[in-house]
Amino acid sequence: MAESTAAVAVEFARKNGERFVEELKALLRIPSISTLPEHAPDVRRAAEFIAAELRRIGMENVELIETVTTDHPHGHPLVYGDWLHAGAGAPTVLCYGHYDVQPAEPLDEWITPPFEPTERNGNLYARGAVDDKGQMWMHVKALESLFAANQGRLPVNVRVLMEGEEEVGGEGIAWFVREHGDRLRADVALVSDTDMFAPDLPTLFVGLRGMIYTEIEVRGAKIDLHSGMYGGAAPNPFVALAQIIAKLKDEDGRILIPGFHDKVVPPSSEEKATWTKLGFDEERYRENQVGSPALINEAGYSVLEAIWTRPTLDVHGMPGGFIGAGAKTVIPAKAVAKVSMRLVPDQAPAEIFAQYKDYVESIAPRGVEVTVRPIHSADPIIVSIDNPYVRAATAAMHEVFGTETVFVRSGASIPVVGDFVRELKLPVLLMGFGLPDDNLHAPNEKFHLANFHRGIESIVRFLDTVRA
Amino acid sequence: MAESTAAVAVEFARKNGERFVEELKALLRIPSISTLPEHAPDVRRAAEFIAAELRRIGMENVELIETVTTDHPHGHPLVYGDWLHAGAGAPTVLCYGHYDVQPAEPLDEWITPPFEPTERNGNLYARGAVDDKGQMWMHVKALESLFAANQGRLPVNVRVLMEGEEEVGGEGIAWFVREHGDRLRADVALVSDTDMFAPDLPTLFVGLRGMIYTEIEVRGAKIDLHSGMYGGAAPNPFVALAQIIAKLKDEDGRILIPGFHDKVVPPSSEEKATWTKLGFDEERYRENQVGSPALINEAGYSVLEAIWTRPTLDVHGMPGGFIGAGAKTVIPAKAVAKVSMRLVPDQAPAEIFAQYKDYVESIAPRGVEVTVRPIHSADPIIVSIDNPYVRAATAAMHEVFGTETVFVRSGASIPVVGDFVRELKLPVLLMGFGLPDDNLHAPNEKFHLANFHRGIESIVRFLDTVRA
Repeated sequence: MAESTAAVAVEFARKNGERFVEELKALLRIPSISTLPEHAPDVRRAAEFIAAELRRIGMENVELIETVTTDHPHGHPLVYGDWLHAGAGAPTVLCYGHYDVQPAEPLDEWITPPFEPTERNGNLYARGAVDDKGQMWMHVKALESLFAANQGRLPVNVRVLMEGEEEVGGEGIAWFVREHGDRLRADVALVSDTDMFAPDLPTLFVGLRGMIYTEIEVRGAKIDLHSGMYGGAAPNPFVALAQIIAKLKDEDGRILIPGFHDKVVPPSSEEKATWTKLGFDEERYRENQVGSPALINEAGYSVLEAIWTRPTLDVHGMPGGFIGAGAKTVIPAKAVAKVSMRLVPDQAPAEIFAQYKDYVESIAPRGVEVTVRPIHSADPIIVSIDNPYVRAATAAMHEVFGTETVFVRSGASIPVVGDFVRELKLPVLLMGFGLPDDNLHAPNEKFHLANFHRGIESIVRFLDTVRA
Repeated sequence: MAESTAAVAVEFARKNGERFVEELKALLRIPSISTLPEHAPDVRRAAEFIAAELRRIGMENVELIETVTTDHPHGHPLVYGDWLHAGAGAPTVLCYGHYDVQPAEPLDEWITPPFEPTERNGNLYARGAVDDKGQMWMHVKALESLFAANQGRLPVNVRVLMEGEEEVGGEGIAWFVREHGDRLRADVALVSDTDMFAPDLPTLFVGLRGMIYTEIEVRGAKIDLHSGMYGGAAPNPFVALAQIIAKLKDEDGRILIPGFHDKVVPPSSEEKATWTKLGFDEERYRENQVGSPALINEAGYSVLEAIWTRPTLDVHGMPGGFIGAGAKTVIPAKAVAKVSMRLVPDQAPAEIFAQYKDYVESIAPRGVEVTVRPIHSADPIIVSIDNPYVRAATAAMHEVFGTETVFVRSGASIPVVGDFVRELKLPVLLMGFGLPDDNLHAPNEKFHLANFHRGIESIVRFLDTVRA
């Protein structure tokens, strides 16, 4: 099983590329939105779809693992499968992905419907196309290609673990990794849930921000009141929330929670030096990717420093009151702000949440009751790049892309990476094939199909290279 | 036509009281929500219901008046009818009411459905029960009773004008009053769209706050963005709105718009002195009517002063972003705040809006575009109480309630009152029969049925008394 195995597998992947895409479309048609309880049956259907395919290609011990626990009512299943016959000395690779997706709203901004995958301009458009159904499907298809190339054998031992709760914080997989780590024994974890720094530039991520997602609920009057008859006497929960939020983050982008920055570890000057070579153009990023009149990176930090190495705070929505067209003169009894903070090493989500909750409670305006709830969290992560798995990955991507891998960070969070690092002590390869303009979590999410295929080939070559 | 006419009409009203309530229920079943375009056919259906009844009882020249104008796309019709045969020297009374209602959300807080009128504990529960279908129906039933008592004649000339856009700002009626005032020639306007200061305490309102209802739209990025990948660089429209709102009103309840208070006229010490005799208990009001931990009346002003004589600012809802259950890590491209200000004499809505817009634009945080839109407005009003119509009204209510009328203000706005005063130069009687706990604009709106009947009797006696 030399270079020829990978070559035969790549050949198989190319011949079957169109079928792979059609299969992915079938998976994308399942609206497996994990945050919305009414879609729980769809999430399960997606899990069963993947389990069936893992069995078909030759994976063993394939099962749906239920994750219902007391503090975890969602209970979307894990999909597990393995093939562990590569022989003595062969490493074991844990392939991770997630098959759940974000809600698709606002629906009217999609050019084609989010759950009717459509090819346009070399891209496949659908909710989940790149985050992460398309990327986890690359793993499945790389394994299928290797099985096909080598009489139903893989060059290394492989465990596949796909979750259905990544977009709601991954408590099920956190529980499984913590309690059943013995079923996940491996040498390295391969995670494809990230993008490349630029088209044609193979990328490994060495850092992820963590996060804590919360809700602040503010209650004023016991019922909704008429703003004419009560305005000026009854507390207004939205005004109170605005006053709270304005004290959480100032107009220079600085977070005002006492103690919040105490544990922040700045990047080394060596690491920062490598970023200056990336040719990142802040003005082009503003114009092409963001499109706002200005960027709001914290004073004293470049955009890359801000999104990779600085914590931040965002408000995602403020449910309550009247949100229809026109006017309703109501003072709502309650309003909520969905607030999250992205964290960087060494900020611990639990400690940050406690600081935040204490502070929000301390600045609550008069007349209202404030409740602060955690929704989910993820640890910030820095991964090592000094290991043979990273070398195998960069070699594999060099074969496919013809260029050297860049090492960057991401501002995003992948909760399970923290679990793998903390509980399983695994080196993690964050090898993704998305592009910066793929519209993750937004209307018109897409996956560049050339990268879907190059991703499969890169994974094929990585699994073949890493066996040595 | 002496005292006996009123007595016979009251007798008729008492005998037919149950039928009057059943008819009102039929009107309340029509969801004539003027703010929601999808309910436009229901609004029209309610207008036709009233027009048919006006014809049936004996009113003449009954018609639906269309109000579609260029700047006024809603176009809910006015209902007009008159009876002008009372003879030389008899005054003409313009009876005003509105047949449109507020949206019923949040639906799950209604004990019985908002458009299935239900009697409980002597109250009739439904959206619009007291605001204002039940109160305008009192006018219709008082007229029916007088026609029945006196061979199809009324003691005075009467014009009825009912609108279907009060809850969206009444632009149609404003246009009609301005352009066709000759069709509304009268000596006094009778408006029943207010409440009584306390149960059993007949009340005339001498002041109303005005208002300007607005939307602040904040746009950041051109599309929704992932808060992990862009958080800390992309502007967050909700954070920007919070920063703006926190600069509109401080935590002492003071509005911070430059020039905003310049035209505020404080009430006379005589008027304030009468309020101290009302026995208003701020703590009981807080506990029973508001139910919040504290009230937020501006420092230095009592609750009644705050809601009757001080301008205020409220936020009614903040559409945009993610408002479902759970978490979505989106930085929304845009967010909106629905903000209204209640105004007092002599604040002019147009001038206040200009000050507000300039100020909001001047405090817009970096990175976002801010658009400020007016939705609708109403003038603040002070009405005279030194005229024979007020004396007739207090005499009529004394007959029914056995007690003297109190003169108070309301914090609410009735835009058409400003139109009547400004365009028609009419004295206006704000004679309403709601109660402070009727849940206007809120779930479980109700009308105390005893007051529905006493209101009819009061209007019967007023129309009979005022003829002299």
